[in-house]
Amino acid sequence: MVNILAEPYFWIAPIGGFASILAALILAWRILSIKVDDPKAAEIASAIRIGAYAFMKRQYTTITIIAIVIAAILLAAGFVAPKDVEAVAVHFGPGAAVAFLIGAFASLLAGFIAMDMATRSNVRTVIMAKRGIEPALKTAFHGGAIMGLLVTGLSLLGVTALFILYGADETTPTKIIGMGFGASLVALFAQLGGGIYTKAADVGADLVGKVEAGIPEDDPRNAAVIADNVGDNVGDSAGRGADLFESATAENIGGMIIGGVIAYWTQNWGFLIFPIIARALGIFATLIGMPFVRLSRGEEHKPMRALHKGLTVTTIMSAVLFYVAIQLLFGSEPGGIYLYFSMLAGLAASILVQVITDYYTGRERGPVRRIADASQTGTATNIITGFSVGLETTALPIASLGACLLVAYYFGTLFGAANPELGANASLIGGVYGTTLATMGMLAVMGMVLALDGFGPIADNAGGIAEMSGQKGIDESMEALDAVGNTTKALTKGFAMGSALLAAQLLFQAYIEAGNEYLRSLSLPEIKLELSNPVVLVSTLIGAMLPFIFSAFAIRAVGSAAKEMVNEVRRQFREIPGLMEGKAKPEYDKAVDISTRAALKEMVLPGLLVVIVPIVVGVLLGLSAVGALVIGATMSGIPLAILMNTGGAAWDNAKKFIEAGNLGGKGSPTHAAAVVGDTVGDPMKDTAGPSLHVLIKLLNTLSILFIPLFIGILGL
Amino acid sequence: MVNILAEPYFWIAPIGGFASILAALILAWRILSIKVDDPKAAEIASAIRIGAYAFMKRQYTTITIIAIVIAAILLAAGFVAPKDVEAVAVHFGPGAAVAFLIGAFASLLAGFIAMDMATRSNVRTVIMAKRGIEPALKTAFHGGAIMGLLVTGLSLLGVTALFILYGADETTPTKIIGMGFGASLVALFAQLGGGIYTKAADVGADLVGKVEAGIPEDDPRNAAVIADNVGDNVGDSAGRGADLFESATAENIGGMIIGGVIAYWTQNWGFLIFPIIARALGIFATLIGMPFVRLSRGEEHKPMRALHKGLTVTTIMSAVLFYVAIQLLFGSEPGGIYLYFSMLAGLAASILVQVITDYYTGRERGPVRRIADASQTGTATNIITGFSVGLETTALPIASLGACLLVAYYFGTLFGAANPELGANASLIGGVYGTTLATMGMLAVMGMVLALDGFGPIADNAGGIAEMSGQKGIDESMEALDAVGNTTKALTKGFAMGSALLAAQLLFQAYIEAGNEYLRSLSLPEIKLELSNPVVLVSTLIGAMLPFIFSAFAIRAVGSAAKEMVNEVRRQFREIPGLMEGKAKPEYDKAVDISTRAALKEMVLPGLLVVIVPIVVGVLLGLSAVGALVIGATMSGIPLAILMNTGGAAWDNAKKFIEAGNLGGKGSPTHAAAVVGDTVGDPMKDTAGPSLHVLIKLLNTLSILFIPLFIGILGL
Repeated sequence: MVNILAEPYFWIAPIGGFASILAALILAWRILSIKVDDPKAAEIASAIRIGAYAFMKRQYTTITIIAIVIAAILLAAGFVAPKDVEAVAVHFGPGAAVAFLIGAFASLLAGFIAMDMATRSNVRTVIMAKRGIEPALKTAFHGGAIMGLLVTGLSLLGVTALFILYGADETTPTKIIGMGFGASLVALFAQLGGGIYTKAADVGADLVGKVEAGIPEDDPRNAAVIADNVGDNVGDSAGRGADLFESATAENIGGMIIGGVIAYWTQNWGFLIFPIIARALGIFATLIGMPFVRLSRGEEHKPMRALHKGLTVTTIMSAVLFYVAIQLLFGSEPGGIYLYFSMLAGLAASILVQVITDYYTGRERGPVRRIADASQTGTATNIITGFSVGLETTALPIASLGACLLVAYYFGTLFGAANPELGANASLIGGVYGTTLATMGMLAVMGMVLALDGFGPIADNAGGIAEMSGQKGIDESMEALDAVGNTTKALTKGFAMGSALLAAQLLFQAYIEAGNEYLRSLSLPEIKLELSNPVVLVSTLIGAMLPFIFSAFAIRAVGSAAKEMVNEVRRQFREIPGLMEGKAKPEYDKAVDISTRAALKEMVLPGLLVVIVPIVVGVLLGLSAVGALVIGATMSGIPLAILMNTGGAAWDNAKKFIEAGNLGGKGSPTHAAAVVGDTVGDPMKDTAGPSLHVLIKLLNTLSILFIPLFIGILGL
Repeated sequence: MVNILAEPYFWIAPIGGFASILAALILAWRILSIKVDDPKAAEIASAIRIGAYAFMKRQYTTITIIAIVIAAILLAAGFVAPKDVEAVAVHFGPGAAVAFLIGAFASLLAGFIAMDMATRSNVRTVIMAKRGIEPALKTAFHGGAIMGLLVTGLSLLGVTALFILYGADETTPTKIIGMGFGASLVALFAQLGGGIYTKAADVGADLVGKVEAGIPEDDPRNAAVIADNVGDNVGDSAGRGADLFESATAENIGGMIIGGVIAYWTQNWGFLIFPIIARALGIFATLIGMPFVRLSRGEEHKPMRALHKGLTVTTIMSAVLFYVAIQLLFGSEPGGIYLYFSMLAGLAASILVQVITDYYTGRERGPVRRIADASQTGTATNIITGFSVGLETTALPIASLGACLLVAYYFGTLFGAANPELGANASLIGGVYGTTLATMGMLAVMGMVLALDGFGPIADNAGGIAEMSGQKGIDESMEALDAVGNTTKALTKGFAMGSALLAAQLLFQAYIEAGNEYLRSLSLPEIKLELSNPVVLVSTLIGAMLPFIFSAFAIRAVGSAAKEMVNEVRRQFREIPGLMEGKAKPEYDKAVDISTRAALKEMVLPGLLVVIVPIVVGVLLGLSAVGALVIGATMSGIPLAILMNTGGAAWDNAKKFIEAGNLGGKGSPTHAAAVVGDTVGDPMKDTAGPSLHVLIKLLNTLSILFIPLFIGILGL
């Protein structure tokens, strides 16, 4: 038993976590010191904020009940399960329940903070826009950065603290996987519920407002407009906050499970703690990169430049810091430098995925133009073309991520071959650690990406507040920011998908490790995932079906709520005298109520479904079947998520391309067709798509946590 | 070396094949003896026929060139590859090239016969409709039955003949896998090209005709109407003919490869030849069931009853004949009766999948009604709801097929356990043979299902001819037949998907067998499909991406050709004076030309893509990687195909539900929204969806044939 806490490098991790939170607090203080000196804007912002709070209060109540029930099950399982099996104590009982609750609570907190900062930054972005585009851009970016830094910092500190509390040795990461599952579970409900809320409102508002009534987006006469703006905060901000907290947490723990194996064999504990150190270094790189988010002279019309600069500096700094860290921790190991190349492969993948997403969703590029052109012959050709673009977008990201994994694996095998003390499977173990490091490499820029992700809904909301409060003279800035926000939202979704895949891969390896550990302790044969075994094949197939049925529920919820919303907004235009002329106010609360009810009602069933199915499969068919199920879900979930995320964004930008005055511009039949395409893409890109990332990781963390349950009573 | 040909039961197979062809010839003689005594209908039918011939001539030229190139490669590979490895001689060289060409040629022939009989039966259905619904129903059914019987018979005779010619022992099935690959390759191009042709015309015709001009379906004033009716024949009939010929062939060969393994160990050659005997028994059951396709008194308004009766009798007869066959061939083996239960599981799956498909596409059921209701709030909610229904339809078929495989596997393991001479893995080998028999069980009713499948486009075409030639008094019969045709088309697509999955599973087992055989002959380690190996995982992921990118190409082709078609039909209405008033004729040939060019141009790239990617992966990463790729493609391809097939049919039937006078009926905004939904579903259900079945089987046959190529030069 080695004392890892005596290892000075270990303390880089908590220092990184604290630095991240400190930076976030400083930024928050700066944002809050901006005075909101526009009563009308303040009033609207307050209405949005109150709506968001009201929804999240109800949503959090539901999620908390579900979380407490699951914690109670974990606790009870600890009493019921045979105590003589060591692994049972690791996976079930008070320790597991507490870790689960900490993960769940922290994830709720991350979502809440994201929503809170977004609803404070939106109106301040409007205020700063009066001084020019750069101050507005920075305000929105800082609002997003607070979320990014807090989420990353909280996750890192949480994992580090639990690691210390639960023993700080190579068996500890498996003991704290409950935290990852708690975070995933909350993230799933937060992302799904928020996604249903926001898109029911958005689709309803657009269909009646833009297409039927011919009034602009965010027009205050539209009854659904407040719900729409609330939705940006509870869906895009809070949902994504919880989602990425979950990513960071699950990946840290998964990386440490794999690292623990190598650490045990090499007796170099650096392998165990490297994942959290890498996360801390990523935070430092992000803190260095953030000040570069600024516009040089002459760049006023290219606000995206500022964000690109920040991202580029962060990426380069990560590469440098990683080199140093690899040298310090593994420099003395034979072939340690190979691990650096594995990490670089991950960093390269993060760049590639973003470039590809940019190509497919860029407003002036081929794919978006193809959708816009197809709108000229009506809605049907718009939808057919958009769907085919969505299908097409799966190829290059998957090819890039596949190549990244193979390269990382290759360098890892070289490292393994140089370390024969890793045992008979040295190359394979080294290769697996290589892919782990690729994940760390990809996630290096996470804080920065999260900041960009938070930027989108803040800019979107600021545009809404400006429109509703009748601001003059800042239209151009607002539109420019909104366009940037759309780009960053698509980019970050590409990143979230890529990191979900790499994380799934990593957690899957951790599952194999932990599962075999458990089976060995019972003297049972190890997990055998031979696809030529029909039981494994069928389980893979069941897994492959899960993302489809989950998406069905999510999209169906948006469809039916949007239908109700359309009818309600139509009714208000018809029945409230003077509404269209601007003399009367719509009943915003009715629309808010439709979104709220739909979100709360419809998020429960799909969420529970994806928890129950793998457990049933595991209890009936055993550990190998669960592993196969998880892989099947990943295999079909990743392309489906890309189809929905990138396809949806392409539809959105085809509409924006037409709204910019092309092919007939606003109000033309071509525009009407493009609006329909956008609304079809909406629940794909903002409800089902991002929830699929969480789903995939949830299945992974769940499978690890419930290992002792998967006894396979059918004995096939 | 045993003389299998001396085994009397063997000869059941060719007898079944000949009986099938004889029955088809009798039916053809009966159809052709119906006199076409309506000059206007004859003229239109002739125009459709000429159009279909013209397209298929050009399409077949392209496919033939591709087939000859691949045959040449197979031939050349035989000279280049090392001759001292026995497996190379099996997979490459003159034998492989000839088998490939026979498969390709027979598949072309099957498609041609299907098209030819469909274009003769359509007009005769119109003629017979004047005598009542039953004669019309029987004519359309017999037209389909000719296709079904010829395809099933040709495949069975072809496989049996090659089996005899290539040696008639347990190694022979692997030698003739080239026939399966040839059939798959032709089927892919036929289904894809035909699918693009038919849907470009259909979508274009509907969008301008029904939505913009407000004229009925198949109105002769619509320039795209002849192309639309030609499309039914070259896409639905010829494409599906080639597709199912391919299914039958590949499954026969795959089943014999697995059966050969058991035969070798047990020295009971019944295991080897049972797949072709089962096919012959299925033909006998079909021939017994077909005369039951008739309407009792009082059933004139329920024509579907007649088809249900035929299908039910065929299913029951199959169960009976299989029992006898199992008793005769395996009755003396310990636990032979377990294999009967495995077969029944397959038969049950075929019923279940059809019941489920019927639920999701039935016009009076929940899902279709949901889409119809959503059309009331416009196109966007129609599309969103339809897409969610499509996603939802994946769950139950996959669960049923999974359960079927598990049950079949379970009984197979019992059989294996009772036969210890099967070696250390007796249970697993028995289980795999159990799933093979499930496939045979499912395919028992294939001839009947094919007949129903052929029924659809014939009824559809008959409706078109009746409308265009201005027939009076048969509207009701024609509409009833069309509705039945839509139901059978959806059912048979469900069946095709189910059988594709089972076939893929079976061919995959055959791949493992043949691949390991090859590796053993080179003293190399066997195929290891451990998903925990990143190389296997990445290959699975690449495979999972293939169905998405393939569908992207297919749907994109339809989208762009439909756009061109819409512009052309719009132009003709605008520029041809008197067209709308019915005083002038449209230029049908321009529309035919658009469909033809699009189909020929766009079918090549996706077709070659799915041939080249697995070969590249195999050459670089080896046999395990190819196996993983095939599984990945199956895992994502099956749910994607179900989504597209069943979702598309639900959209179609929601439109038909409204056209029947519900929710505002024809001409209402609700109807317009539903027409858009239908056109969006069209390329999914008739172009991409059915091509995905072929794609999955193509990957399987290709992987087996090219085994010696997959050397994995990267050595990962």
